[in-house]
Amino acid sequence: MIHPRLTLALTIMEALAIFAYAISGLIEARTRRLDAVGTFLVAMATAFGGGTMRDILLERRPFYWVEHQGYMLAIFALALFAPTVLKATSRVLSNRVLLVADAIGLGLFSISGTSLALDAQMPRFTAVMLGVITGVFGGVIRDVLCNEVPLILRDSRPYATCAFVGCWVYVGLDYVAFDTVYSVMAAAGFILLARLVTFRLDVRLPH
Amino acid sequence: MIHPRLTLALTIMEALAIFAYAISGLIEARTRRLDAVGTFLVAMATAFGGGTMRDILLERRPFYWVEHQGYMLAIFALALFAPTVLKATSRVLSNRVLLVADAIGLGLFSISGTSLALDAQMPRFTAVMLGVITGVFGGVIRDVLCNEVPLILRDSRPYATCAFVGCWVYVGLDYVAFDTVYSVMAAAGFILLARLVTFRLDVRLPH
Amino acid sequence: MIHPRLTLALTIMEALAIFAYAISGLIEARTRRLDAVGTFLVAMATAFGGGTMRDILLERRPFYWVEHQGYMLAIFALALFAPTVLKATSRVLSNRVLLVADAIGLGLFSISGTSLALDAQMPRFTAVMLGVITGVFGGVIRDVLCNEVPLILRDSRPYATCAFVGCWVYVGLDYVAFDTVYSVMAAAGFILLARLVTFRLDVRLPH
Repeated sequence: MIHPRLTLALTIMEALAIFAYAISGLIEARTRRLDAVGTFLVAMATAFGGGTMRDILLERRPFYWVEHQGYMLAIFALALFAPTVLKATSRVLSNRVLLVADAIGLGLFSISGTSLALDAQMPRFTAVMLGVITGVFGGVIRDVLCNEVPLILRDSRPYATCAFVGCWVYVGLDYVAFDTVYSVMAAAGFILLARLVTFRLDVRLPH
Repeated sequence: MIHPRLTLALTIMEALAIFAYAISGLIEARTRRLDAVGTFLVAMATAFGGGTMRDILLERRPFYWVEHQGYMLAIFALALFAPTVLKATSRVLSNRVLLVADAIGLGLFSISGTSLALDAQMPRFTAVMLGVITGVFGGVIRDVLCNEVPLILRDSRPYATCAFVGCWVYVGLDYVAFDTVYSVMAAAGFILLARLVTFRLDVRLPH
Repeated sequence: MIHPRLTLALTIMEALAIFAYAISGLIEARTRRLDAVGTFLVAMATAFGGGTMRDILLERRPFYWVEHQGYMLAIFALALFAPTVLKATSRVLSNRVLLVADAIGLGLFSISGTSLALDAQMPRFTAVMLGVITGVFGGVIRDVLCNEVPLILRDSRPYATCAFVGCWVYVGLDYVAFDTVYSVMAAAGFILLARLVTFRLDVRLPH
């Protein structure tokens, strides 16, 4: 998703990110008491909505979820057993773990968008915005499908803002010609930290 | 929409399916008291939303509704005379007829998605999911535009599930190299029957 | 956006149109008390949603907002200072000015869609519908993101209808081989006037 030279660490984090997004879709779908198929569609849209929008905007094919059927099958299994899965995760995965996984997802998805946009010769500000869209669009679709004002639009805690700043960090590192893998990890790590620190300190954006 | 070797029977059923979807859009729009133009846009989005999403995902052009202006003009006429049309249909077309027409639509749209995805060398599970998306996405857009949680996400009667199973039936028939036209009719018929039978028996998916 | 032979007047009107749409997004976002980033995303989606949808449907790349970073930066600045901007605009720009700017936007965006669709050899009715979609889709996304039934679907004052008729005017002028720039200005002007006059006379479409 990010770069051919993906290391094992990145692959693991990517899987983590996809599942964190999928699980946030599952939770939302369960709150709405959707059935197994509805739950699956919402979870898929949450996990892959951002990347698919990125690929439509950048004209990249095939879509990520098309190439990696494994993820789709795994999310299908999750959705089938969603009640059990969520009971298990509520024991094993505390809200804190979910928050961290979601922040990893935000970091990796956002940087993947910016990185691919720069590869496609997009101007910098555009590349940063494509990164933000990639990072947040899955959650937006999740909330639109469940008939809510998207969380990122109403929560005043920095979320898209963390992605925005982190994508600029990536653009900077890319400009000084750092190795791509390190740039990705540094910028995604920056977003992860920025999200967790601002969340912990309860920083609020002005209304 | 489905295959070059479309027989007359398929063409008729396809028209039936498109109008069933368009009329479900009309009804929703009238319930919301939309005006003629709003009604038209919702009906168009319901009838062609699934196929357009399929074509965006599979990069097929031109879109079906672009090639077949006739449908667009007919739906335009329907929308202009929607109050009269709906009064007429509520007399002539009972809910049962609408349910059957919608189920024909679900069958044909879903199988068209799976069939075209297989033609484009997509892996099987992906092809099945593209079929389900093609079948249900029009209804999802209809409900999002009318500011409701999409019906397929909240109704526990099997709908997407019927499409899902039927698309697998098509994949199976395709694998054993049945003639495409027969496979399409058998699989779409399977979806039609599955929908009607489960609806009649009031089968519910577990929440 | 419309034609290579864009005159200075068209460029100025285009900027006006984009900002009118962006400001309608800002106002909606502020009503919902979104933060700066949310406000920016809603404003961008409102200003460029229609054109982006048009480009996806017609397979045109790069997107307009990708080529013209300046607009994106300006909207970003607007969103950052939205509370101040809106206080200023509510003094300087009355509702009447906004209505006019929005109508200019509706005219130019709609005609751009129809014009590009005709260039791409689309049939006429399709070209007209693509024009209407280009003109109104930004507002639809704005309302869907803010969890409302899209305004154009519930307001009975002619809006999409003005665009629809104006796009047919453009098709007619194009058919009799008028110079494109004059056709664009005449048809966009027609839409502007139709919108303002029907609004003023409080013309209502039948429900």
